[in-house]
Amino acid sequence: VEGREAVITIADLGEFGLIAAIARDLPGSDDLIIGVGDDAAVLRAPDGRVVATSDLLIEGRHFRREWSSAEDVGHKAAARSLSDVAAMGARPTAVLVSFAGPAETPADWVLAVVRGIAAECAGAGACVAGGDTSSAPFVLLAITGLGDLAGRPPVTRGGAKPGDVVAVTGTLGSAAAGFALLAARGVSGASGADMADLVDAHRRPQPPYREGPRAAELGATAMIDVSDGLLADLGHVAAASGVHIDVLTDRLRSGPLVRDSALSAAATDLGEADWLRWVLTGGDDYALAATFPPAAVPPAGWAVIGAVTAGQGLTVDGREWSGPGGWDHFPAK
Amino acid sequence: VEGREAVITIADLGEFGLIAAIARDLPGSDDLIIGVGDDAAVLRAPDGRVVATSDLLIEGRHFRREWSSAEDVGHKAAARSLSDVAAMGARPTAVLVSFAGPAETPADWVLAVVRGIAAECAGAGACVAGGDTSSAPFVLLAITGLGDLAGRPPVTRGGAKPGDVVAVTGTLGSAAAGFALLAARGVSGASGADMADLVDAHRRPQPPYREGPRAAELGATAMIDVSDGLLADLGHVAAASGVHIDVLTDRLRSGPLVRDSALSAAATDLGEADWLRWVLTGGDDYALAATFPPAAVPPAGWAVIGAVTAGQGLTVDGREWSGPGGWDHFPAK
Repeated sequence: VEGREAVITIADLGEFGLIAAIARDLPGSDDLIIGVGDDAAVLRAPDGRVVATSDLLIEGRHFRREWSSAEDVGHKAAARSLSDVAAMGARPTAVLVSFAGPAETPADWVLAVVRGIAAECAGAGACVAGGDTSSAPFVLLAITGLGDLAGRPPVTRGGAKPGDVVAVTGTLGSAAAGFALLAARGVSGASGADMADLVDAHRRPQPPYREGPRAAELGATAMIDVSDGLLADLGHVAAASGVHIDVLTDRLRSGPLVRDSALSAAATDLGEADWLRWVLTGGDDYALAATFPPAAVPPAGWAVIGAVTAGQGLTVDGREWSGPGGWDHFPAK
Repeated sequence: VEGREAVITIADLGEFGLIAAIARDLPGSDDLIIGVGDDAAVLRAPDGRVVATSDLLIEGRHFRREWSSAEDVGHKAAARSLSDVAAMGARPTAVLVSFAGPAETPADWVLAVVRGIAAECAGAGACVAGGDTSSAPFVLLAITGLGDLAGRPPVTRGGAKPGDVVAVTGTLGSAAAGFALLAARGVSGASGADMADLVDAHRRPQPPYREGPRAAELGATAMIDVSDGLLADLGHVAAASGVHIDVLTDRLRSGPLVRDSALSAAATDLGEADWLRWVLTGGDDYALAATFPPAAVPPAGWAVIGAVTAGQGLTVDGREWSGPGGWDHFPAK
């Protein structure tokens, strides 16, 4: 803050000082009974069941400090877990944050990560309830997301039935294109508003949290968040449900799911033959994909992009798909 | 397994292969509605509240692969979080396990860690419900523990009142002595059954999980698990409760809490002046410390080791204590 020459590190604060500084800024929540500072948090679970998921975010693998601000890292760390909660049809209620990093990590950087986490949680209706701190040779975050089903059955990956339609909400391909731009051009090389949108999508995805419970209310039979890539994740749904899914690429070439002009510009800039690859195989946008019974018109904001039939596996435009392994030269991350 | 010359690594299995191998061995539970394999787990939370805590276990900091077996690492990782749940007075119901490690980590080693986690959970009445896997330059585990309060108020650190007695159950000092033996003598140097008990206590602590809910039922006013060291942790209780706590060392020199003959032999072997240091400042045995109203005789299995009075801070035998900082030359870990 004042005195740039004297950076306060997390080693200067110590474990208890760091936890106290983190706790100072955290907003409360109707769901939070006991927060940071005791052996464990206590949260409301009014449904009588709790949805729980845990994810790791590791420096160099899931983010780079030179590409993303501390707030970005926090937003993305929270989004990964909150999106999983929403994909069960649940309302996110809380996260637990475990942080580890080198002793020389600036305390302000860590507090900014936590601000990012808290802001992302607030957007999803959740709070930061607790966690752990430790030292490690590089920065890592482990985020646990909790949620409430409000009396509804959870929407698993395994409920899709022949005759259902496949629909998606959120954005697809932007984060993967943004990652490709950063990897090829660096932070300063991705110019233009369109490009910046893609890079922002990589840094700070915007999962459609509220659409998860909404899809559950409207009768979604299966749901997943798109974190491994659309085809890989719909492949998980097909396998868990024991059905066949066909994806229609003409539904993905335009419309609300894709920033087609930005993706097209990025593909040209990077010499990629077809930006549809990013849409089909790119993760990290955290869109939601769900199947709905034929009678249930998918809700506004969802786009129908495929169909469920009897059988197994995944096809694209009715043709055999070799699976995500066929894209190994183009990893999603 | 067969063919020792061809070790199967986690990179050979791949993320989905590893998760499938992990899921194959996991026992179910009455609390588990949806386990490993979907976006998130779903668990019963019959109380309408859920207790939740998260801890990191990092190679080189919390364990060493040359000192502990994979099963040991799993037991200890689970114990850290389950003990926190019990210290709120809750029954542990489930853990989520996030694992990261180098690509060349043997798959058998990871599966043995998970077996250790599952076995420790089974001893506490909990199940393994989900988690995450990733790659990292060294092994790390992030464990989230969940629990149920069965209608009781949570027992926080903040409820101790003047006139209460301080009681402890479990063991104290053994894990710290075992760590000191391993550090000074190595795996093969800590000989004799007594020494082996101390080393085992470091490798595989045995927290008294069921005493947490039992203490809550019997009216405990405050509770904490001893993970930072007895004095440090009772200091947390004194600070959170706004009271003064006096610890009586004659209650700690013998009795069920301490393996006095083993500690004495280890102190002699290592040239330590007094093994009581391990008892007062050593963490990682995961004993439970609680305060009880004067009218509530502490339950069988608990030993009274101090008293709560008006004021603040911690004394030992009525004398000023400089705090855990005074023991910096003897860190708990």
